[in-house]
Amino acid sequence: MTTVNKPKVVILGAGYGGLLTAVRLQKLVGVNDAEITLINKNDYHYETTWLHEASAGTLHHDRVRYNIADVINRSKVNFVQDSVEEIKADEKKVILSNGEVTYDYLVVALGGESETFGIKGLKENAFTITSVDSSRQIREHIEYQFATYSAEADKQEERLSIVVGGAGFTGIEFLGELVNRIPQLCKEYEIEQSKVNIYCVEAAPMALPGFDPGLVSYATALLEKKGVEFNIGTAIKECTPEGVLVAKGDEEPRLIKAGTVVWAAGVRGNEVIEKSGFENIRGRVTVDSHLRMPAHEDIFILGDCSAVINEENNRPFPPTAQIAMQQAVLTAKNIASLIQGKNDLKEFTFDNKGTVCSLGEHDAIGVVFGKKLTGFSASFMKKVIDNRALFMIGGIPLVLKKGKFNIF
Amino acid sequence: MTTVNKPKVVILGAGYGGLLTAVRLQKLVGVNDAEITLINKNDYHYETTWLHEASAGTLHHDRVRYNIADVINRSKVNFVQDSVEEIKADEKKVILSNGEVTYDYLVVALGGESETFGIKGLKENAFTITSVDSSRQIREHIEYQFATYSAEADKQEERLSIVVGGAGFTGIEFLGELVNRIPQLCKEYEIEQSKVNIYCVEAAPMALPGFDPGLVSYATALLEKKGVEFNIGTAIKECTPEGVLVAKGDEEPRLIKAGTVVWAAGVRGNEVIEKSGFENIRGRVTVDSHLRMPAHEDIFILGDCSAVINEENNRPFPPTAQIAMQQAVLTAKNIASLIQGKNDLKEFTFDNKGTVCSLGEHDAIGVVFGKKLTGFSASFMKKVIDNRALFMIGGIPLVLKKGKFNIF
Repeated sequence: MTTVNKPKVVILGAGYGGLLTAVRLQKLVGVNDAEITLINKNDYHYETTWLHEASAGTLHHDRVRYNIADVINRSKVNFVQDSVEEIKADEKKVILSNGEVTYDYLVVALGGESETFGIKGLKENAFTITSVDSSRQIREHIEYQFATYSAEADKQEERLSIVVGGAGFTGIEFLGELVNRIPQLCKEYEIEQSKVNIYCVEAAPMALPGFDPGLVSYATALLEKKGVEFNIGTAIKECTPEGVLVAKGDEEPRLIKAGTVVWAAGVRGNEVIEKSGFENIRGRVTVDSHLRMPAHEDIFILGDCSAVINEENNRPFPPTAQIAMQQAVLTAKNIASLIQGKNDLKEFTFDNKGTVCSLGEHDAIGVVFGKKLTGFSASFMKKVIDNRALFMIGGIPLVLKKGKFNIF
Repeated sequence: MTTVNKPKVVILGAGYGGLLTAVRLQKLVGVNDAEITLINKNDYHYETTWLHEASAGTLHHDRVRYNIADVINRSKVNFVQDSVEEIKADEKKVILSNGEVTYDYLVVALGGESETFGIKGLKENAFTITSVDSSRQIREHIEYQFATYSAEADKQEERLSIVVGGAGFTGIEFLGELVNRIPQLCKEYEIEQSKVNIYCVEAAPMALPGFDPGLVSYATALLEKKGVEFNIGTAIKECTPEGVLVAKGDEEPRLIKAGTVVWAAGVRGNEVIEKSGFENIRGRVTVDSHLRMPAHEDIFILGDCSAVINEENNRPFPPTAQIAMQQAVLTAKNIASLIQGKNDLKEFTFDNKGTVCSLGEHDAIGVVFGKKLTGFSASFMKKVIDNRALFMIGGIPLVLKKGKFNIF
């Protein structure tokens, strides 16, 4: 037997980065070459980029997740369901809520968290689109507000108001689902749609910063037509149980009353990064060209916890599923190379294939392979991208099981 | 034309009593014999006796209601959607929220309301199973509590506790649905069922007072097996946002923490009766043998607003759909007789065909034509009774559209 001194590879997190690393690595190495352990809080993977649909209630939360057991090869990968508390890099050890594990190679792919920038009351009074649990809570919260409005004698119209904080990717995609969901809720609870108000509050001077301005206009015009009121260049100063206090520039703050506030504006890295004492900016570690942590060559950091500098503007690439998956493909190869003693590590370069922002089931905007798209073609591409993520991790069987085929 | 002096018949309420009166009357009189107006708050009738299912979420609220327009003959009955404020008997006039109407014959079938017996905090903090609106609010409230429990970091188990105040008919039937709904909710929100607590608190010394004790034991044993904790002979002293304060006899009150409190213990008549200055006991008028109000022979009172004395025990019959419908059949005949100048008014006698109390979809207890039933046969009879109510008002078409055929 040659198994005694098998190198231990530990992968933290089964999001896009971690799960794809595990799936790729199990193909690249033999059973006797390494002991691979995947650790995740839940026994399922969820599509972070689909959570806005589960939150609006336009797609059931079971459609946005699948069992990790269905895509890993159990003979090669051990799965441990546990939460990561801290990484002790000097001891090559990870502290879990219910135990600890040592490693020779560590992949940190713990995902991001919501960044509230210290805005008062946001943590207590706003929802975030960050997990299956939080998404279905948003869905149920909105529905309960509508049911209560119908039942109460003294009707409070602000129950029907929804504030979305942030007109970035998540905010816009959530709004796209919400405007399709509201007519269904109005029918279910017999409420005139004109009584429902949807506000989007964005501190930046434009929606979807960085996106092509023509496409942004297409998106905001469509959402406005469906009832969204945009407050661009307007900051949320405070979130209270009644709603949000907002102000444009130095204006006096005004209150937007709302039964539901969803904060969709900020993503940061993971607090485990900070707890572990690693050098970081908002929970993200600036990695080397092999995606490793400086001074700890046995630790690879992927996805929302890693910052890869874009040399064009000297700023980190925004955290997306696309970059996380490209990082995972490379990391699996590099770890396999280390295990097999080849040590021919490859450098990471981000190949930006484009971005599509959905605007509900049948509309979207995007730039794909440098080409601008709107409407059907963009919406079609979005579903192709969604299905491709499934294919990368679980192949055809997973696409058939969880894929999006509502093309027309 | 002989229409000038047509007598005006006004029917207030489209519950079991009012709607059946309208439907029967439209068959008994010709278009030119009378002007019949039916007034109801909603444009739909709902099955009050099915609301516990909509409240638990085991039957969609659209299944428990149908459009009034579908069962009345528009050429004979005018339908007015409005709320009744007051009856001015001396002026033969009814004040509505948006107008008024005069009558020659008035049928008051406004239905009952929840009776809270002055228990502190109940109106503010407890739900009642009294309408489509309130039922779907209960359904959504419970679901939101489960969704929130799953999403919150600091889990509050009392969110998963439900207190049902009252072990009478409504309370027991609601519990029967609830114990079937909880496993579905636990699956949807990934909650261990052992964390859910259902309490039934009843001040009387037994559940379902007046029912056969053997049948009551059957019901409580079944519900206990499915997780209900009965607190019989225990009064709710106060309802707070945290739960209910209860006490057995002179004991020190103790708090049962619960995210949801449903008050299902008391029914009274309608506040319009009181506002109109009629002699009443808790909103119910003791009617004469023709179901008329003493001193106002042009006013017939049916259903939950009327008290018909049972000569066997000198107490009023409990308000049920069964008695309301029998009253409606007689009242339609009597009014037709008055209109047609025959004046051979018939006296009301209640023909108690029995009672069935459901315990979820496939179980029940009951006494039908003097025979005790449990389990499948009782459950089957309950569906027969439910379908019969539909048949009485809307004939075969309504039974086919809204009937219950989930017999196996």
